[in-house]
Amino acid sequence: MRVRKKPWAAQELLDNTLVINDAPEKKGKWKEYFGNDHPIYVEIGCGKGGFLRKNAEAYPDVNFIGIEQQETVVAMAARRADEELPNLAFVWDNASNLSDLFEVGEFQRLYLNFSDPWPKKRTYKRRLTYRGFLQEYRRIMGEDAEIFFKTDNRGLFEFSLNEFCADDWKLSNISLDLHNSDYEGNIMTEYEEKFSSRGMPIYRLEARNRK
Amino acid sequence: MRVRKKPWAAQELLDNTLVINDAPEKKGKWKEYFGNDHPIYVEIGCGKGGFLRKNAEAYPDVNFIGIEQQETVVAMAARRADEELPNLAFVWDNASNLSDLFEVGEFQRLYLNFSDPWPKKRTYKRRLTYRGFLQEYRRIMGEDAEIFFKTDNRGLFEFSLNEFCADDWKLSNISLDLHNSDYEGNIMTEYEEKFSSRGMPIYRLEARNRK
Repeated sequence: MRVRKKPWAAQELLDNTLVINDAPEKKGKWKEYFGNDHPIYVEIGCGKGGFLRKNAEAYPDVNFIGIEQQETVVAMAARRADEELPNLAFVWDNASNLSDLFEVGEFQRLYLNFSDPWPKKRTYKRRLTYRGFLQEYRRIMGEDAEIFFKTDNRGLFEFSLNEFCADDWKLSNISLDLHNSDYEGNIMTEYEEKFSSRGMPIYRLEARNRK
Repeated sequence: MRVRKKPWAAQELLDNTLVINDAPEKKGKWKEYFGNDHPIYVEIGCGKGGFLRKNAEAYPDVNFIGIEQQETVVAMAARRADEELPNLAFVWDNASNLSDLFEVGEFQRLYLNFSDPWPKKRTYKRRLTYRGFLQEYRRIMGEDAEIFFKTDNRGLFEFSLNEFCADDWKLSNISLDLHNSDYEGNIMTEYEEKFSSRGMPIYRLEARNRK
């Protein structure tokens, strides 16, 4: 979802302490940045940040980093969050260069929520669950790699199931209708709140590296 | 789906040469029965047999055995098929005693099509993709075990995905809407023809033993 550029966004990025403007310099030093040894969970495409903000509030013993490629959206995410949250950070960047931002094993879980489905067949390599990306996520997270994925797009979910299986991840907690399932503790994204209220199913899975 | 008992069914089972009335005595001797070394594929709950009949016609180099627990339905399956088909057999039995019918490794592929979803939570152990059954299927098929599963029931498909993954099968060709997918060569069951014409999605997957 494209968001119209806001004139205040660039300044918000500079002023808001939740925004990391020199993220590549934090590579290998994220524990130092957060000042503790807590696990680090990353969301690619964090949008307006509601999912990570609520996670950061609910799980103070985990550090959360949201990556978002739209400048204005990162600014909105940072503005909506409490700047006092010590376990939350936002990075204005895209997902294509995780190894510029992290050392191997520096984060342990990746969240992909409502990623762009790239529905045209010839664009499948841009989907964030394409096996090329999955291999890179595993490489950078290391042997404890886990990915929590949800989407409202049936085609993307079908594609992703096949990609995760082809790349030999261990799947669990697969939901074809998350909001009518037994899964507890779901934290909704802004998009999910809007979308699921229309009664359409949300698909979700957890994938772990097979050791 | 329960079918009203037909008075002619018992006689049809006795008379129709496609029906194997002494199936337990064929255990370990199915190759002998078919008179060749072709692979043997089994369908549990074959219903009126349309799926297997069409498979037997399309793949003469494979032997197909349909197991069905309703007497009248087996009789209907046998009556509808061409008695001259040398690679097709029907057994009136239920799925709970595969090892009474087959030696380990005697068949290589199992079809589960539109199995009873047993939708009540407390009855999950009766679903044919419950992990207890999956373990038994693997044991009896051996290391080349493969299961081709399809259903119109989203809840059963979700349950099955999780059971196959928990029991560590290797999944592929997962479809969340088979009739609008790229999958080619689908052979429809009677139920599927009726059901899919209403535009509801059919779910499908292939599971293979991880060697």
